[in-house]
Amino acid sequence: MQKVYLGKNVSDRFSLQIGDLAEKGKVTVLRVTPEALTDMCGTNNHQGVACRSGDVSMLELQDILPLLDGKKGPVLLVLLDHVQDPHNLGAVVRTAEACGAMAVIFPKRRAALPGGTVVKVSAGAALRVPMVAVTNVAQTVREIQQNGFWTIGLDNKNGRSLWSETMPEKTLLVVGAEGEGLSRLVAETCDETVRIPVAGATGSLNASVACAVGMFEWARKWGAQS
Amino acid sequence: MQKVYLGKNVSDRFSLQIGDLAEKGKVTVLRVTPEALTDMCGTNNHQGVACRSGDVSMLELQDILPLLDGKKGPVLLVLLDHVQDPHNLGAVVRTAEACGAMAVIFPKRRAALPGGTVVKVSAGAALRVPMVAVTNVAQTVREIQQNGFWTIGLDNKNGRSLWSETMPEKTLLVVGAEGEGLSRLVAETCDETVRIPVAGATGSLNASVACAVGMFEWARKWGAQS
Repeated sequence: MQKVYLGKNVSDRFSLQIGDLAEKGKVTVLRVTPEALTDMCGTNNHQGVACRSGDVSMLELQDILPLLDGKKGPVLLVLLDHVQDPHNLGAVVRTAEACGAMAVIFPKRRAALPGGTVVKVSAGAALRVPMVAVTNVAQTVREIQQNGFWTIGLDNKNGRSLWSETMPEKTLLVVGAEGEGLSRLVAETCDETVRIPVAGATGSLNASVACAVGMFEWARKWGAQS
Repeated sequence: MQKVYLGKNVSDRFSLQIGDLAEKGKVTVLRVTPEALTDMCGTNNHQGVACRSGDVSMLELQDILPLLDGKKGPVLLVLLDHVQDPHNLGAVVRTAEACGAMAVIFPKRRAALPGGTVVKVSAGAALRVPMVAVTNVAQTVREIQQNGFWTIGLDNKNGRSLWSETMPEKTLLVVGAEGEGLSRLVAETCDETVRIPVAGATGSLNASVACAVGMFEWARKWGAQS
């Protein structure tokens, strides 16, 4: 984080809290008008404070493949098949960090990309979890498979129940887009498709919630235990 | 659902899709200007369509307590301890329906209440899952305890790991507010507090994601299996 912008109209208590945190983090605080904040954020939904963070550093698949080869111990990778909503991408990244996932992978085109909303919704995790932008989702599944990963496509219609087997130590979890789910080619490329059993009339979960349930099913066995 | 309002500027394809769905559901479609939609929704984030649904029917605790007494089979109840964000309430209700929860319970004051955002984010589940508004959260925990439920407070700091034991057939899951978590009195009133083990710098989950992970830990054993 590089700079914090604090509205001139916030309460003294809030101003002191932000000042303390900024001092600990050695970040400069600038007082600005509420209108300047709204301009900066592109919305008036900013609660009187904004910050300028570093950019999300984007990696290529080739940057992480050499790290997978021969890596010991549990590794979770998450690949999003054209998730559209930056809120969902941000939520996935926040949960991915909490599950100890090694990276979040997403397509460069026709998909949500990291930006301000993603960083905010991720509670900053998008600045810490490696973010990997790829050209072709099915090809990415194949390349990660070749590095010894079991590839699981989360599907809301087909496949075994998520509860029927535990996930292997090295897992790539592939999650489909809102509404459409996994593309057929991607589903067919995965080693298996897995379905989260659900009740009720909606019959589906929000994409980031489905992804969280999948990731925690891995973390329950292989992630942090305390 | 009573009426669908469709923007005059949407594509023919979208208009036909909505027309088909409306015909199946026997709902009237009215064509309106985009400006009228924005007025109706209080936001321009409406993608060209809106509907007028029935109201969320709110129940009192006394409406559901008689149903719990002597009820056979698995029952999950979810109680929110002052969750503030209607997006989180909506997301919880959508997942609660998918997990087969019997009701979602929340305080009448100082908390998010069902409204348009909640119904939308819940994908309509807020119109189907019983929504119970209560006066006092700790007192609600006690009354549900007295009906043979094991009461589990989800806490991001204290308690056993969520993975260490399965949840009982009749469980009340209590989830804290964004940021603050469970109030001390509520945490002390629960039979136990349970923590979702997480890795990484953020160190916490979004309230609706934490609630989803807790609910699915129950559903994995007691909910829909196919």
